[in-house]
Amino acid sequence: MATMGTQGQFKVVGTRPVRPDGVEKVTGRAAFGADLSLPGMLVGKVKRSPHAHARIVSIDVEKARALPGVKAVVTAADFPEIASEEAFVGEGPMNFRDLSCNCMARGKVLYEGHAVAAVAATSSAIADAALDLIEVVYEPLPHVIDVEAAMAPGAPLLHDDLITQGVDPAPRTPSNVAKRVHFSLGDVEAGFRAAQVVLERRYTTKPVHQAYIEPHACVASAGADGQCQIWCSSQGQFMVRAYCAKLLGLPISSIRVTPAEIGGGFGGKTLVYLEPLALALSKQSGRPVKMVMTREEVFRATGPTSGAVVEVKIGATRDGKITGAQAVLKYQAGAFPGSPVQPGCMAAFAMYDLDNVSVTGYDVVCNRPKVAAYRAPGAPIASFAVESCLDELARTLGLDPIALREKNAAKDGTRAVYGPIWKDIGYVETLQAAKKHAHYAAPLGPNQGRGVASGFWFNIGGESTAEVHINEDGTAVVVSGNPDIGGSRASMAMMAAEVLGIPVERVRPIVGDTSSIGYSFLTGGSRVTFATGMAVVQAAQEVVGELKRRAALILDVSPEAIEWRDGAAVPSDADPGRFAPLPLAAIALKAGRTGGPISAKASINAQGAGPGFATHLCDVEVDPETGQVKILRYTAIQDVGRAIHPSYVEGQIQGGVAQGIGWALNEEYIYDANGRLENPGFLDYRVPVASDLPMIEAVMVEVPNPRHPFGVRGVGEVPIVPPMAAVANAIHAATGVRLADLPMSPPRVLAAITRATT
Amino acid sequence: MATMGTQGQFKVVGTRPVRPDGVEKVTGRAAFGADLSLPGMLVGKVKRSPHAHARIVSIDVEKARALPGVKAVVTAADFPEIASEEAFVGEGPMNFRDLSCNCMARGKVLYEGHAVAAVAATSSAIADAALDLIEVVYEPLPHVIDVEAAMAPGAPLLHDDLITQGVDPAPRTPSNVAKRVHFSLGDVEAGFRAAQVVLERRYTTKPVHQAYIEPHACVASAGADGQCQIWCSSQGQFMVRAYCAKLLGLPISSIRVTPAEIGGGFGGKTLVYLEPLALALSKQSGRPVKMVMTREEVFRATGPTSGAVVEVKIGATRDGKITGAQAVLKYQAGAFPGSPVQPGCMAAFAMYDLDNVSVTGYDVVCNRPKVAAYRAPGAPIASFAVESCLDELARTLGLDPIALREKNAAKDGTRAVYGPIWKDIGYVETLQAAKKHAHYAAPLGPNQGRGVASGFWFNIGGESTAEVHINEDGTAVVVSGNPDIGGSRASMAMMAAEVLGIPVERVRPIVGDTSSIGYSFLTGGSRVTFATGMAVVQAAQEVVGELKRRAALILDVSPEAIEWRDGAAVPSDADPGRFAPLPLAAIALKAGRTGGPISAKASINAQGAGPGFATHLCDVEVDPETGQVKILRYTAIQDVGRAIHPSYVEGQIQGGVAQGIGWALNEEYIYDANGRLENPGFLDYRVPVASDLPMIEAVMVEVPNPRHPFGVRGVGEVPIVPPMAAVANAIHAATGVRLADLPMSPPRVLAAITRATT
Repeated sequence: MATMGTQGQFKVVGTRPVRPDGVEKVTGRAAFGADLSLPGMLVGKVKRSPHAHARIVSIDVEKARALPGVKAVVTAADFPEIASEEAFVGEGPMNFRDLSCNCMARGKVLYEGHAVAAVAATSSAIADAALDLIEVVYEPLPHVIDVEAAMAPGAPLLHDDLITQGVDPAPRTPSNVAKRVHFSLGDVEAGFRAAQVVLERRYTTKPVHQAYIEPHACVASAGADGQCQIWCSSQGQFMVRAYCAKLLGLPISSIRVTPAEIGGGFGGKTLVYLEPLALALSKQSGRPVKMVMTREEVFRATGPTSGAVVEVKIGATRDGKITGAQAVLKYQAGAFPGSPVQPGCMAAFAMYDLDNVSVTGYDVVCNRPKVAAYRAPGAPIASFAVESCLDELARTLGLDPIALREKNAAKDGTRAVYGPIWKDIGYVETLQAAKKHAHYAAPLGPNQGRGVASGFWFNIGGESTAEVHINEDGTAVVVSGNPDIGGSRASMAMMAAEVLGIPVERVRPIVGDTSSIGYSFLTGGSRVTFATGMAVVQAAQEVVGELKRRAALILDVSPEAIEWRDGAAVPSDADPGRFAPLPLAAIALKAGRTGGPISAKASINAQGAGPGFATHLCDVEVDPETGQVKILRYTAIQDVGRAIHPSYVEGQIQGGVAQGIGWALNEEYIYDANGRLENPGFLDYRVPVASDLPMIEAVMVEVPNPRHPFGVRGVGEVPIVPPMAAVANAIHAATGVRLADLPMSPPRVLAAITRATT
Repeated sequence: MATMGTQGQFKVVGTRPVRPDGVEKVTGRAAFGADLSLPGMLVGKVKRSPHAHARIVSIDVEKARALPGVKAVVTAADFPEIASEEAFVGEGPMNFRDLSCNCMARGKVLYEGHAVAAVAATSSAIADAALDLIEVVYEPLPHVIDVEAAMAPGAPLLHDDLITQGVDPAPRTPSNVAKRVHFSLGDVEAGFRAAQVVLERRYTTKPVHQAYIEPHACVASAGADGQCQIWCSSQGQFMVRAYCAKLLGLPISSIRVTPAEIGGGFGGKTLVYLEPLALALSKQSGRPVKMVMTREEVFRATGPTSGAVVEVKIGATRDGKITGAQAVLKYQAGAFPGSPVQPGCMAAFAMYDLDNVSVTGYDVVCNRPKVAAYRAPGAPIASFAVESCLDELARTLGLDPIALREKNAAKDGTRAVYGPIWKDIGYVETLQAAKKHAHYAAPLGPNQGRGVASGFWFNIGGESTAEVHINEDGTAVVVSGNPDIGGSRASMAMMAAEVLGIPVERVRPIVGDTSSIGYSFLTGGSRVTFATGMAVVQAAQEVVGELKRRAALILDVSPEAIEWRDGAAVPSDADPGRFAPLPLAAIALKAGRTGGPISAKASINAQGAGPGFATHLCDVEVDPETGQVKILRYTAIQDVGRAIHPSYVEGQIQGGVAQGIGWALNEEYIYDANGRLENPGFLDYRVPVASDLPMIEAVMVEVPNPRHPFGVRGVGEVPIVPPMAAVANAIHAATGVRLADLPMSPPRVLAAITRATT
């Protein structure tokens, strides 16, 4: 795999040391969410709705409670009722009433699998028996599953009080449309009038699940003094703490959350499901409670991303200059508002420098599990539509698809439709690298085709805390508050080692619990290496300053006479022979006698996350008799800013592409007429496995982000954005058939080919 | 119980909130050293020497290793050989060669119970069987148990290379005297010549064990990548980490130590015994290993404090002015150098303002378990002798014992024999409080007597780190790196709450593991509320500064316009109506948008620990027919500087007195002729139980220590210093018989009475 851009000015950054969590994980010693057991611990389980939409007439838990071995039973009545109120959490809105009602249905069930009660018992069998003894009387209601049906007049309403936001004047009557989002620049109708070619297309996508291998799991333990502990796998121990406090009406200081290792999240573990239930069961029983979802529960009751309908209209001159671009995005939110339609709108045309552009999005509730974030939330859906349409435009105009993109590419100074003016971005560099890559010129055989597509993610910064402690022997500890999902322990240790000037093997990276490290926002938004990394660098720089002060005391020179180089205090250039280098370990040994322990902490709200751009090349072969699509070759070119640990960056790119290919070819939620999910398992919900995929080549372009000390920009989300269009464009190249509906599974592809040839 | 001194200027300091760890402990939920279990965990056990002194001819572990279920066997050969080298650790010297040889005998066994091998097996029974299969061939050597026998010419030598330190010129031949300590002021012979009365007496004490209820226990887990974790109960997770790293030759960063709750330490858990063995066994087996000592092992193989011989000579004028004072202290060190004879020498006459004084101490090895620190190490032994002798002097001169002490009491400006000049001390205040206390004037019955004795401990400061984090809802976390032995969680939370101006219930105190908090020296030396408290106060003050800066941003005023009062930003007095108070919670809610998480860390090496002084009153009744001594009433008056949580301070005083009474009346190590301990259990080693003791009254005098922001001085150690002399003096008052040898058990008391009356 190739690395481009500058290198060599660093000693540690850009190298590929052994992963700090690698051996623990491959030897099975790493402790995930379900791996903790406590004395006297109970098993917690959830009773779930069999209906897609129903009023809860009554819940009788007395028989369950009376069963020997049952120690606690909770329903919505055991949780405080929370007023509807949008709180700003990290980077987005969060309605805690909805979160509470999603964790435990109150009054109505809104999707099949919606939790209605939970029990804790001394064994799994007793807990199962108790669930059966809970008597719930439902009054079934008409349900609605798909987004346009939910938007239609007369659709069954999920919420009586849901008034569409973002519409002026506000509607007087409730609907299933939670929000309208609109961004525009220039005059899009004038743009279409100036066009010589206008394409107008409609695309649809299905909900897909994050499909993390580890299901949701937690242990909660509430003490008789109200002090609570939670151990769980999540994308943020501080999120779990804050949400549980809110949902149970507890002070935040009464809850301590210890993060377990996490077996995949991809955005889907940025919410609580089991944790508040386990805590309520533990409070009632006075014993620790473990809860672990089955795979079926994960599918039925945790968030996939939206299914959507996207309408795109693009006008251009004959030489390929886009004069006007418009998109309408209709996203399923699931049972409660909150689809990623807004970031979808932001991402739709973000790769392009457009004078006239209009994007409108709708956030629409329907009787499905509430969606959760999924890697670059919303962007892959929008880009599937826009990048498919651009491919068709290139063919229509007889232009090379990369050349068309280059002609319209966003660059420094381009204003994005949602506000920002780009600076120091590397989109053009990814197009140039794609054009020059051997893959782009490689010959193709019969039934084979090549697709090109680009993608964007804005990436975020946010609040992070980090600490660097120097041990007595000169080794170091770096502590952060973010679960390590994509290699952040390695990158934190490497950045600290780079600043301290010591080998990375002498730095131990640790993920702290909520009580031992300051607040840190979620591991998400591709923010951790950027934002938490900035905090680590700041703390390490403070440590270096302190090391220089201590060295000055030991050497009896002024601190100004000291430089820090290669892990040692050395004389400044003004007087290079003044003293022999004093290494970190020698300073550490005397910390006690020069002022005490040497350590530093940084708490920041990081700004200036660099946006990420990628261009992907995909070769497919389509079996004309079965419609099966085989991915022959895949090259993902991405501006990664600066790769701290290139192997992890490549892994992120490969993982994102693999998920995008699954989304493109096979993954979908299939519902029956009653609104019941028919494929809640990995046999029927088909994620790509190793034998489905070629080795995915990751090409890292490095256009450093000047707002980060090492030039980092987020890398984890962009790679899932282009694959669906890249595959669709390749299928078109191979077959002459345009697929506008995901997934492009064999029956669909075969049907499209058959339609085109008959 | 009474509190004296100023109060009322604080809102939280000086109150008695519910203890943060109380409910966990009384409900049995608190996790002590033996309470963690990990999947696949093995049981580790130790093979111990049956000889007091022997050469190890050979150790054959092959049969043990071959036993099914045995996964690891280690002997000294599995540990790196460490050169003899005195390292300065915290406040004292530590010879890591000795520590290594104490954990696992190398070449020789030096006491009965000395570890020679350790095994890890899948069950306790298999581990026991494996111990029996280890074949050790010993060549027994002559042994020596008592201190003067060990000092005598021709005594069996424990170490061939032990040359007495502190003697000039250095001896040419080895001996059992590891060190001579000497302090003097003025001319003591001239002082005796100026005296009108000179008393010269000899006192002896027996080794006593700290008798913590929780035996030593740990779990160690070494990963295949060399990353190690240890969970254990100790007085310092950083001590365990550093010592294990040293003894196994590992970088400190490869070990993470998580402190368990601790069921008593009293100085005895300031060393490692099992932890390095468990870690070596885990490294060899690749599995976690749990080791827990039996009570018998605790007695045979962990450190009691020294038994000693103390010779005291005091000269005075007839009106009670001491003209010369001299003491010679001979302390058993156990098998390796390191008795607390130096602090014994420091403490012997520290209560008195003396012009001519000489103190000489000897640190003497003998075939007993290596001594460990025990509450005010060394001082109770010295004070038993000096305060007994002073009592006799008062009787000889016909003076009130308190008046004699007042006449000679150390006060501001007094130079102590070991160097410091006292400042802001409260010894005289304790004497005045004792004289005025109703106890001192209460009538006594037949066979009853009252004793008075004083005590001193210097207390220490040292390295500590603390963090204060503000949560999103305005609650707070305070993190420190010291195991909570005497209520430090409460005192840390209270000091933070006082500075932040919020209720203490909104502050959660946490003890961090070695990777999540910066270095902190041991919980010992009565340093934690003082030193770690200073770090907490400093961090909380930094947080307040940050809160004011954030409030300035929110209110759009300059930070100088803001004061912090009662947990809120309020307008400065210059412009009192400028804005409404902005409480901490409102500032916390907006932390993200005003710069990120609000938290602060302080790492300090605290100086200026205030010395502690106490005066105790004790009434006894002696049964003339059995010699049994009953404690009728006990009042302990102590300068505590400032009591942060008075109930905990009273508890420390009561606990110290109870241990001192046990030391005075019953506790002792009894050896047979072969150097084997005869009473290694609580049936034969008798600690006082509740029915042996009256309610001990703690009177707190508060002479604030100006070097601490709230005036704290250490309180945990002083209370064990006076009781032995107080009891001996009371027995003398009741019987007319002077007991100079501890313990003053019924047979000894009866014999003394019998001797005196026949």
